[in-house]
Amino acid sequence: MERTNMFSMGISQDEMRRMCSVHLTEDGQLEILDQTQLPGREVYLRPGTAEEMYGAIRTLAVRGAPAIGIFAGYCMYVLAKQEAGKPGFRERMEKHGAYLISCRPTAVNLPWAVERMLRVISSHPEMTDEEITEALLRESIAIHDEDMEMCRRISEFGLTLLRDGDGILTHCNAGPLATSRYGTAIGPMLLGHERGMRFHVYADETRPLLQGARLTAWELHRAGVDVTLICDNMASLVMRQGKIQACFVGCDRIAANGDFANKIGTSGVAILAKHYGIPFYTLGPMSTIDMACPDGHAIRIEERDGEEIRRMWYEIPMAPEGVPCYNPAFDVTDHSLVTAIVTDRGIVYPPFDVNLKRLCRETSGREESR
Amino acid sequence: MERTNMFSMGISQDEMRRMCSVHLTEDGQLEILDQTQLPGREVYLRPGTAEEMYGAIRTLAVRGAPAIGIFAGYCMYVLAKQEAGKPGFRERMEKHGAYLISCRPTAVNLPWAVERMLRVISSHPEMTDEEITEALLRESIAIHDEDMEMCRRISEFGLTLLRDGDGILTHCNAGPLATSRYGTAIGPMLLGHERGMRFHVYADETRPLLQGARLTAWELHRAGVDVTLICDNMASLVMRQGKIQACFVGCDRIAANGDFANKIGTSGVAILAKHYGIPFYTLGPMSTIDMACPDGHAIRIEERDGEEIRRMWYEIPMAPEGVPCYNPAFDVTDHSLVTAIVTDRGIVYPPFDVNLKRLCRETSGREESR
Repeated sequence: MERTNMFSMGISQDEMRRMCSVHLTEDGQLEILDQTQLPGREVYLRPGTAEEMYGAIRTLAVRGAPAIGIFAGYCMYVLAKQEAGKPGFRERMEKHGAYLISCRPTAVNLPWAVERMLRVISSHPEMTDEEITEALLRESIAIHDEDMEMCRRISEFGLTLLRDGDGILTHCNAGPLATSRYGTAIGPMLLGHERGMRFHVYADETRPLLQGARLTAWELHRAGVDVTLICDNMASLVMRQGKIQACFVGCDRIAANGDFANKIGTSGVAILAKHYGIPFYTLGPMSTIDMACPDGHAIRIEERDGEEIRRMWYEIPMAPEGVPCYNPAFDVTDHSLVTAIVTDRGIVYPPFDVNLKRLCRETSGREESR
Repeated sequence: MERTNMFSMGISQDEMRRMCSVHLTEDGQLEILDQTQLPGREVYLRPGTAEEMYGAIRTLAVRGAPAIGIFAGYCMYVLAKQEAGKPGFRERMEKHGAYLISCRPTAVNLPWAVERMLRVISSHPEMTDEEITEALLRESIAIHDEDMEMCRRISEFGLTLLRDGDGILTHCNAGPLATSRYGTAIGPMLLGHERGMRFHVYADETRPLLQGARLTAWELHRAGVDVTLICDNMASLVMRQGKIQACFVGCDRIAANGDFANKIGTSGVAILAKHYGIPFYTLGPMSTIDMACPDGHAIRIEERDGEEIRRMWYEIPMAPEGVPCYNPAFDVTDHSLVTAIVTDRGIVYPPFDVNLKRLCRETSGREESR
């Protein structure tokens, strides 16, 4: 845990907790920042029952795949505390787990975390309920710590690409709210800021759901980073004005050739960056690399409800009723536009097909030799 | 007027009137489409008094420089009808004109149109009030006709650049609402549609004021053109998908070297088009060419209130309170990204510095020889 200590140097436990959207309070309660209320209100929820936990995922009060995984881990611990000592403890925990998973079955991190917690129970038939509960606390903290460690590594690697005073453009939200402390694409900015570096971040608002405006701008502003919000269509102008020295974006899936899928608009930012000669980086954990996916053409683009474009928050009309809207949630950025891919195991430069393969081989070798 | 007849071939007077946001009704009343109510409601206003006319400009119920000019012409006619026969008719008309001009003194077309109408009065001291009123009617119709003719010419020239079945991307609003029938950048699509051609138009919503969503999508949808609304950050994906064969945008000011200013985001569209090998055109009247402006660096970018980004319609929060926003209203597109400039006097290809100069010289020669 030496590295974790390094990363939290000079930051109190209180501050670290507050920086995470999902956490345990000091008296062991599960607390989450309600992301549906941002940016208008900063509301914390303390879901105590399985139904309230289910509801928090369902309503997107907690969102972002890693954050949902961390949340699910803590849910299982909190539920175990309540169930410990009651008859049928282990069966009741199985039932709670299945119930939580059923909420968003396609969110990979949700079943992954729940099943990891359930394995703690099933692999220790000798333990008392209280011992199991303690083991679940340790496991849930481990899930959280691993995510923070992944974010810290990405942030450290990413920070080597920045210089004091740089202007950075980011798109969508790949920050602490979606993960744990630091986040991925936003991580280097937060880490550098903690170390006294000064960046000027330009955050694309990221229509239609405004994750950049609501979440990224909120996170950076709150952390004291100099952030300026712009509309997506202003990226070209700020680049032309010389305000941007690097683009940092997250990624949802990286193909074997370095093409990657991310929030809609990412590929446009990459093309502008290339035009203006600005380096363009994508940041994400090793788990994002999908070597089974040969290139971007194999990535299916999810299409969402056009009503997200026509009406703000499904209420305020922004366009005529009945006008067809095309609402793809992601786009694919061609690897030829990417300067480097920043992972928790290092920075990968072109040729990506060769170097991604090498990194994955080295990493899996390292994992196996542990 | 032979060309004007050609352009309205097969379209009834009623339809033509309805297509214009500013017009006289058959019984001589001034009627405007209230642009502040779009796209939620389609409300027509009939400002009858000078105060109501002033209010319509002030509240942006009528907007777009050419549309304001047409509106001012009709205002002066309608006011003359009311004042004719009363003592001090000519003085009262002077006063009305000064009052209207005072509403938005920086809108070039407003004083231009009012002064043109007042010259009709001052240059005919021999006429009766009724004769003056008739002359003002003719002059106001002339202003409207000239704008329609300008739009028609741009539309005809622009249409030669399109083929049946083309996908076209447009940004912001350069359509009938801002001008008269057809508009400029949207003109070729409307004209081609009338002639039975089928286009697939993708309209950028154009944040922050959503002129693309509220106005362009409304205009094209209403005219029966196949239009799909997208967020600004989706342009790259639809180009990558092969859906776009040409980009058509308006322009606010064209420099002598072909650089031009237009709504924020235009330069980004041009860079994407170049990347994907898609032709990119800007369309505007000769009056937009400013030969005294050497290049885009000489064009000042107007910066607007950040609240337009932070709150939808200044009400609904879209970003955290207090987050700095940068809200430039325009950007400059480099001439190297422009395939051609479409004017009411012809299509200009590179090298723009040479060919714009030649066109301006030829045009001014033609005007003088009339």
